[in-house]
Amino acid sequence: MPLDEFKLIHRIQQQRSSEPDDVLIGIGDDAAAVNPTPGMTTVLTTDTFVEGLDFDMAFSTWPQIGWKSMTANISDIAAMGGQPRYALTTLCLPNDRTAKEVDGLYEGMDRLIKHLNQPISIIGGDLSGTTGPTVISITLIGEADPARLLKRSGARVGDLVCVTGHLGASEAGLRLLQQTRQSPEAGALLKSYADTVKKHRTPVPRVQEARLLANSGYVSAMIDISDGLSSDVLHIGHGSHVGLSLDADALPITPETRAVAQILHVDPVKLAMQSGEEFELLCTIDPDQVEQLAAQIADQTGISLTPIGEIVAESEGFSWYDTAGHHRLKAEGYKHFEKWIPT
Amino acid sequence: MPLDEFKLIHRIQQQRSSEPDDVLIGIGDDAAAVNPTPGMTTVLTTDTFVEGLDFDMAFSTWPQIGWKSMTANISDIAAMGGQPRYALTTLCLPNDRTAKEVDGLYEGMDRLIKHLNQPISIIGGDLSGTTGPTVISITLIGEADPARLLKRSGARVGDLVCVTGHLGASEAGLRLLQQTRQSPEAGALLKSYADTVKKHRTPVPRVQEARLLANSGYVSAMIDISDGLSSDVLHIGHGSHVGLSLDADALPITPETRAVAQILHVDPVKLAMQSGEEFELLCTIDPDQVEQLAAQIADQTGISLTPIGEIVAESEGFSWYDTAGHHRLKAEGYKHFEKWIPT
Repeated sequence: MPLDEFKLIHRIQQQRSSEPDDVLIGIGDDAAAVNPTPGMTTVLTTDTFVEGLDFDMAFSTWPQIGWKSMTANISDIAAMGGQPRYALTTLCLPNDRTAKEVDGLYEGMDRLIKHLNQPISIIGGDLSGTTGPTVISITLIGEADPARLLKRSGARVGDLVCVTGHLGASEAGLRLLQQTRQSPEAGALLKSYADTVKKHRTPVPRVQEARLLANSGYVSAMIDISDGLSSDVLHIGHGSHVGLSLDADALPITPETRAVAQILHVDPVKLAMQSGEEFELLCTIDPDQVEQLAAQIADQTGISLTPIGEIVAESEGFSWYDTAGHHRLKAEGYKHFEKWIPT
Repeated sequence: MPLDEFKLIHRIQQQRSSEPDDVLIGIGDDAAAVNPTPGMTTVLTTDTFVEGLDFDMAFSTWPQIGWKSMTANISDIAAMGGQPRYALTTLCLPNDRTAKEVDGLYEGMDRLIKHLNQPISIIGGDLSGTTGPTVISITLIGEADPARLLKRSGARVGDLVCVTGHLGASEAGLRLLQQTRQSPEAGALLKSYADTVKKHRTPVPRVQEARLLANSGYVSAMIDISDGLSSDVLHIGHGSHVGLSLDADALPITPETRAVAQILHVDPVKLAMQSGEEFELLCTIDPDQVEQLAAQIADQTGISLTPIGEIVAESEGFSWYDTAGHHRLKAEGYKHFEKWIPT
């Protein structure tokens, strides 16, 4: 039976728990309406996921895809030093999608919001058919103290480049899923490396960590790692008109990710440099404050903050080094218009 | 040559004129940031257009499609009594789309904004590839005086149902384009009925009219006609828990639309009832104030405001009447999950 737009909207609306007081108008009118907190700046982002390009139904369930789509948007707001608040969700659904699958998507989004324990509400969106793949597009609105807003452009020479959590697992998890697809060992392997697979399927955005970093006053620039470290760190470099030097040996890579890299026959450092959708925070910090800030974040969230390089003069360019020497740093992360071009 | 995401973002960014002071961060960071006007409520909407379902390249140019996509969003904010302010634009582009076509889309959006002379800025968005049709998804943020916010739910028994401008031309224009596609008379016909075709291709949202209506204090409910009069008026009826009675003979239909209806062998009243994407305002008004409000709007904008029916008790249900008698009113407008189902 084909989906009915109005019934589906009603269904999504009914499944939301009652709206908080700051939502004047939620799902169901021409537009939603919310009251901004006085003195706060409105922060806005939007991120889109196309079936077959950004997600693969062979490797993830609908709740996992809903979770991850919402993570990407929440992570963008967090990386600006903002508090995520209101989401608009748009779905383009092919004819064979069912209401149950749509329920699954929203279930995943709701589950993430509950897991984060953040005041985030889905307050509207749009539904459309399509003759092509499923498209999930989310717009997320947040609020930030204008004095604490963190751009890509504030990095200063001498700052340390730091990253939360660990790197490489998102790409490692995806490749492990792809490689073991037809393998009889798949079940056992995926169980052994569950954390790596989880990082690909249901990554957690670093909301609390971002707030601690933004509120500290010691962070000069911040971005989340969505395209891959080597690509995103250059956004800071270009945006701040500085050079930078990364220490490959300092990259936080878990033993599990290293083990998966070995199975995949790939260099774990290369994996950590290129892996997109990590949703870790990449920031530049006053060198005298890193240690104390890392201790505070570890204490309050259990997540590490690792220095992985230094901001240098623009004239020195972008480089990374390991025991073998110095190398030029090139963006080798994910590019949206390359992934799907027949090769 | 395949499109490069970062280059395309840079290109779109370069083409925007300098950002206004209230935009703290525009295109190019993880998120955009704007300062809300103190005391105002934030109004949010999103609307999506899928090639082949919501627009047809055989009948419209890219600038026309850009214009119309933006119109749909602006119209939603206006219909709430809001001032449209900031847009996020998302494009899913198949492999054969060119940068020139993308330029055309933005050119159309910019042209509409300039035509309206409204302080609307495109401040961010997302770009993605797709293996399916082109998808254009816009999120628009506006501001409204919370005391002037107009929902679907405020209509009161005795209010007059009124509509701005005229009805039926959007659907008439589309059908004329479809019917004359292969015809040798197409050129002459489309020229003779240029206003009708224009209403389909580049409809103008009623921003100034909406503000006059909202500020008057005499409007109890408002919605824009995007799904079709018969469908949208029921949204007011259901939302306000009232019945309504429409006078078919009162529907504002231009002589040109009537002439096109004759060519198409369709009933102009049926056309006016069903035609979606009209982007006219449909509202319920204190009966004592309609005449004066209509005169004020005509004076300041040149656009008519026509009473087309009355709000009655919920128990009386939804009906319309003409010289032939009374009929039950049913939603017969556009439904997103029916249009594309093979028939």
